[in-house]
Amino acid sequence: MNAESGLVAAVRNARLQDFVGVAERIRGDIIRTPLLPCTSGTKTIRLKAECLQPLGSFKIRAAASVLQTMDPGDLERGVATASAGNFAQGLGLAAKRRGIALTVHAPDSAAKVKLEAIRGLGARIVMHPFADWWSIMTTRETGADDGVFIHPVCEAGVILGNGSIGLELAEDWPEMDTVVIPFGGGGLSSGIALALRALSRKVRIVACEVETSTALTAAFAANAPVRVERHPSFVDGIGSNGVLEEMWPLVKELIDDVVVVTLSEVKAAVRVLALRHHLIAEGAGAAALAAALSPRCKGTNVAAVITGGNIDAAVLCPILSGADV
Amino acid sequence: MNAESGLVAAVRNARLQDFVGVAERIRGDIIRTPLLPCTSGTKTIRLKAECLQPLGSFKIRAAASVLQTMDPGDLERGVATASAGNFAQGLGLAAKRRGIALTVHAPDSAAKVKLEAIRGLGARIVMHPFADWWSIMTTRETGADDGVFIHPVCEAGVILGNGSIGLELAEDWPEMDTVVIPFGGGGLSSGIALALRALSRKVRIVACEVETSTALTAAFAANAPVRVERHPSFVDGIGSNGVLEEMWPLVKELIDDVVVVTLSEVKAAVRVLALRHHLIAEGAGAAALAAALSPRCKGTNVAAVITGGNIDAAVLCPILSGADV
Repeated sequence: MNAESGLVAAVRNARLQDFVGVAERIRGDIIRTPLLPCTSGTKTIRLKAECLQPLGSFKIRAAASVLQTMDPGDLERGVATASAGNFAQGLGLAAKRRGIALTVHAPDSAAKVKLEAIRGLGARIVMHPFADWWSIMTTRETGADDGVFIHPVCEAGVILGNGSIGLELAEDWPEMDTVVIPFGGGGLSSGIALALRALSRKVRIVACEVETSTALTAAFAANAPVRVERHPSFVDGIGSNGVLEEMWPLVKELIDDVVVVTLSEVKAAVRVLALRHHLIAEGAGAAALAAALSPRCKGTNVAAVITGGNIDAAVLCPILSGADV
Repeated sequence: MNAESGLVAAVRNARLQDFVGVAERIRGDIIRTPLLPCTSGTKTIRLKAECLQPLGSFKIRAAASVLQTMDPGDLERGVATASAGNFAQGLGLAAKRRGIALTVHAPDSAAKVKLEAIRGLGARIVMHPFADWWSIMTTRETGADDGVFIHPVCEAGVILGNGSIGLELAEDWPEMDTVVIPFGGGGLSSGIALALRALSRKVRIVACEVETSTALTAAFAANAPVRVERHPSFVDGIGSNGVLEEMWPLVKELIDDVVVVTLSEVKAAVRVLALRHHLIAEGAGAAALAAALSPRCKGTNVAAVITGGNIDAAVLCPILSGADV
């Protein structure tokens, strides 16, 4: 058995009490985000406003969860991760609150503003050439004695923490029959799906992708992860060159359908969220609403997970005015 | 005893069970808005995100409350109000849900877009020259047999409905010692203050005004409502030419302090809300955070009521980019 199948086995076997336990233990780190009725569209759509979380994304759930599910003795040596984005920030905040030393390994291509934010939370940053950094991501070897390595995606604690969204959705909306989730690495979809399954709730899990990167659609077509093109766009929070091999067994089992949305549909959803619901969502966050609004998404009572709100005003404002459409 | 003192007596004598009863009955109309931790400033500040309510403001609470506290027999003839803003929209939505006919008397200066929204909710609109409209506001006589007249401010049901915010704040934050509330007509401050008093919670009630209209500051200085100048600005949801005579006894008794904020401070608060908390707030809504952040506002655990989010993108975007400061 290799590390990947260990992950899959660990989360597949997670029981309801495991999800509930994690949700209890991260309660002080997160917001119980509201599920807002959406007045657009012909379906009944509700918005899970994860953009209201501390640091503006659902990632704080996973970060806090990982620290809470680790052996306290292991945490004394500190923890390390390889990320330069929202996960490292979430881990920085969760570690700071617990007085745990954090080392973040970042590629030298990382955005300075994100590194500053991570440093501002008290983490130590080690920069690497991109190839060396990618090697850390795949081997989990940082080459230093900087504590337990926490993978930003392939980690049971990450998936269990994301499951807390599933528990909240189930509690807040007993009639929900479909949930739409932006597809990045698959950890969010898996966590929500497994939590709902642990609750014995029959809910269709719909992943959404943007037309500029359709890794999951391609994987379902080929019945295996395949390499796809990823075209950069303002939707920078999701999309990849391919479904992660170690996540594919979970993803294949748990996701019922994929809806691909256009950039134009995502922009329209950003506008609806801002102008009708007064929420600022980043492209990836708005993609779930775009998919829910689409006739390509089936379902009657559809929850859309608005995963995050980290979008620059310079990107947001032309979308709000419709000037860039 | 005149109508005004009747209002004051009615709400002063309201018991906790009255506030709780109203809150229960409007539950299906409103969102239980989250109380979000704010990371700015040196105090501990939390944000009551009323901008997430249906139609983007707290007014739906008051509108639904009024209909719920009226005699069902009286509602059969329909209801009428004099408003051209958020209250008429809230009443439109609450009346539509209950199948109650609504007539809205509006001044001929009313914004077409707001009238369209009210009409879209199924209300009948009657336009009046401004002086005639103002006469309806003060006499409650519409000159037509269009049902029970509901005043947008001086109405016990309005104040009881606003009190539901006080109940939620008290439940969500036992350590809260101060609440900051934008001051328009005084109905929101009074409702929150009375609900907290009914709960026997000692919380300082701080009203906030914008430098362009300081009716409450002037009234406290003169110990009576006095006429003040009101200079138009992007903060269009609060401010008046003077505290309403019939509200003054309540306002004087219940409000502990007033903080006046500058337009520049309000803009900074709009930016904090948008860029850190992913909430779009209109000027009046952001004013409460501006006051909470100010050293002129005392308190350790301060809740700021972000009353609404109805701001045009054309106004918001220059503020977000800092281009208009």
